[in-house]
Amino acid sequence: MFILPKKATIIEVGPRDGLQNESMIVPPDVKVRFIEALQQSGITEMEITSFVSPKWVPQMADAVQIVSESPKNGRQIVLTPNEKGVVRALESGANSVAVFVGVSDSFNKKNINKTTAESMHELKPIVEQLKKDGVFVRACISTAFYCPFEGKINKESTLAICEEFTSWGVDELSVADTIGMADPVESYELFSYLKEELSETVLLTAHFHDTRKMALANIFASLQAGIDRFDTSAGGLGGCPFAPGATGNVATEDVVHMLHHMDIDTGIDINKLCEAIDLIAGYVSKPIESGMYRLYKQ
Amino acid sequence: MFILPKKATIIEVGPRDGLQNESMIVPPDVKVRFIEALQQSGITEMEITSFVSPKWVPQMADAVQIVSESPKNGRQIVLTPNEKGVVRALESGANSVAVFVGVSDSFNKKNINKTTAESMHELKPIVEQLKKDGVFVRACISTAFYCPFEGKINKESTLAICEEFTSWGVDELSVADTIGMADPVESYELFSYLKEELSETVLLTAHFHDTRKMALANIFASLQAGIDRFDTSAGGLGGCPFAPGATGNVATEDVVHMLHHMDIDTGIDINKLCEAIDLIAGYVSKPIESGMYRLYKQ
Repeated sequence: MFILPKKATIIEVGPRDGLQNESMIVPPDVKVRFIEALQQSGITEMEITSFVSPKWVPQMADAVQIVSESPKNGRQIVLTPNEKGVVRALESGANSVAVFVGVSDSFNKKNINKTTAESMHELKPIVEQLKKDGVFVRACISTAFYCPFEGKINKESTLAICEEFTSWGVDELSVADTIGMADPVESYELFSYLKEELSETVLLTAHFHDTRKMALANIFASLQAGIDRFDTSAGGLGGCPFAPGATGNVATEDVVHMLHHMDIDTGIDINKLCEAIDLIAGYVSKPIESGMYRLYKQ
Repeated sequence: MFILPKKATIIEVGPRDGLQNESMIVPPDVKVRFIEALQQSGITEMEITSFVSPKWVPQMADAVQIVSESPKNGRQIVLTPNEKGVVRALESGANSVAVFVGVSDSFNKKNINKTTAESMHELKPIVEQLKKDGVFVRACISTAFYCPFEGKINKESTLAICEEFTSWGVDELSVADTIGMADPVESYELFSYLKEELSETVLLTAHFHDTRKMALANIFASLQAGIDRFDTSAGGLGGCPFAPGATGNVATEDVVHMLHHMDIDTGIDINKLCEAIDLIAGYVSKPIESGMYRLYKQ
């Protein structure tokens, strides 16, 4: 039999990762109502917006407004690409910040025009300052399994980035299969390895994409490896713009349903979650294809 | 680490289970080309049609033609509901027959207006005669996990049906989560139990639906339980008409991809499989949503 955790934490990324590539701008008040409804469904940790250049991501031009108007419940994380973003985020009242880097140089360059080492060099003083200021820091590590340009990433490279972040005092590592290519065996292997090698004090989160429909299988394998934190996106909104074929964050409602079915508590009400998706469904360009939202709409 | 099989067998059910509920009649020559293309992709076992009443399933009115015109490669199975169907199937030249029953009485009654015991009583002489005649017999056991009317099915009831079929000499048991409700823990539990209790000589096949997106996770869990045979449907075609919410057979191409990625050989070429789906995609009412077919179409 399996030894699975009794509880798991969902980190909802829909309002940020889910919406960032939508070309139609979602009105800020709709976003705030979406965030509020997600909180009311029981979500306690959420990426709510990002302080990136509006030139690159016009959808996030309202970041200041989103932070100031969203109800202050649970952990509300804002993504920041650099020091300027961090300063703006803190000025807006954010108390949890996410930084990001790709394990793969090619991907990191394509994404933000820097090598992985250059990114880490820049992030170090930022993260250290944030930790001095008592801010919760989440490090998002992309292409931790595969890179669309370099192929398979070796686990030692991923561990090295994780260890560097941990040495700076980050609170959470979100380790991502950015292009949805990892299989359950690989998911189990990488997360077992990271669990064994990393300090127990850092929160270790798995971020899977459902591009090849293996996300739930990967989550099941990660649970077997002792992982109990998962990034998911309500309605399966979003993906990654810089990774060819990487459509499809895994849908929160399908993950929560599977977890509950296996007696793993998340504190989330699936019906209320689907009500939250109702608020945003009319503003996004692709249909909501998750199993649980479809059953809810029947 | 996991101990997974090195090889797995796909039983393609698209031409039968996938098409049976399509209201638009697919021309027989299209079906035959679809079957042929599936064979060419490396499929060696397939449900190609069913000898049911055309009054109930008009799509299968061409069963005789499909059997006689399909190339005789590998195991081509026809589904039959009763003795009349079996006689017609054998006259048409079929050499592999599938019979079916629901573990749940309520489901079986809704499906064919008989209790499970009545069905089994009728099937016994049919199966025994088929085995005397040297015909390969596959027994499809629906609602083996959950029934839409009765809820959770206990594993002893499912085992009892499996054992009865085995005592009559059936070659294969296809054990189905008809309404796509089982989770990976339940999949592992039931298939471990059946593996342990049943004779090793009977082929044990898992049939999952992707209604709640857990099919690939369930397949991964079943592999861990030692199962190496899976019913799947090219393009994820079909579902079950008598089970509310039971849309969505799991897509062959996504299952094959996951298996190959974990170094489990199936002998199937995913690209050729997608070419086969191309032949049928224009004739079915719902879009093909599998991950691998979408990547193929990009």
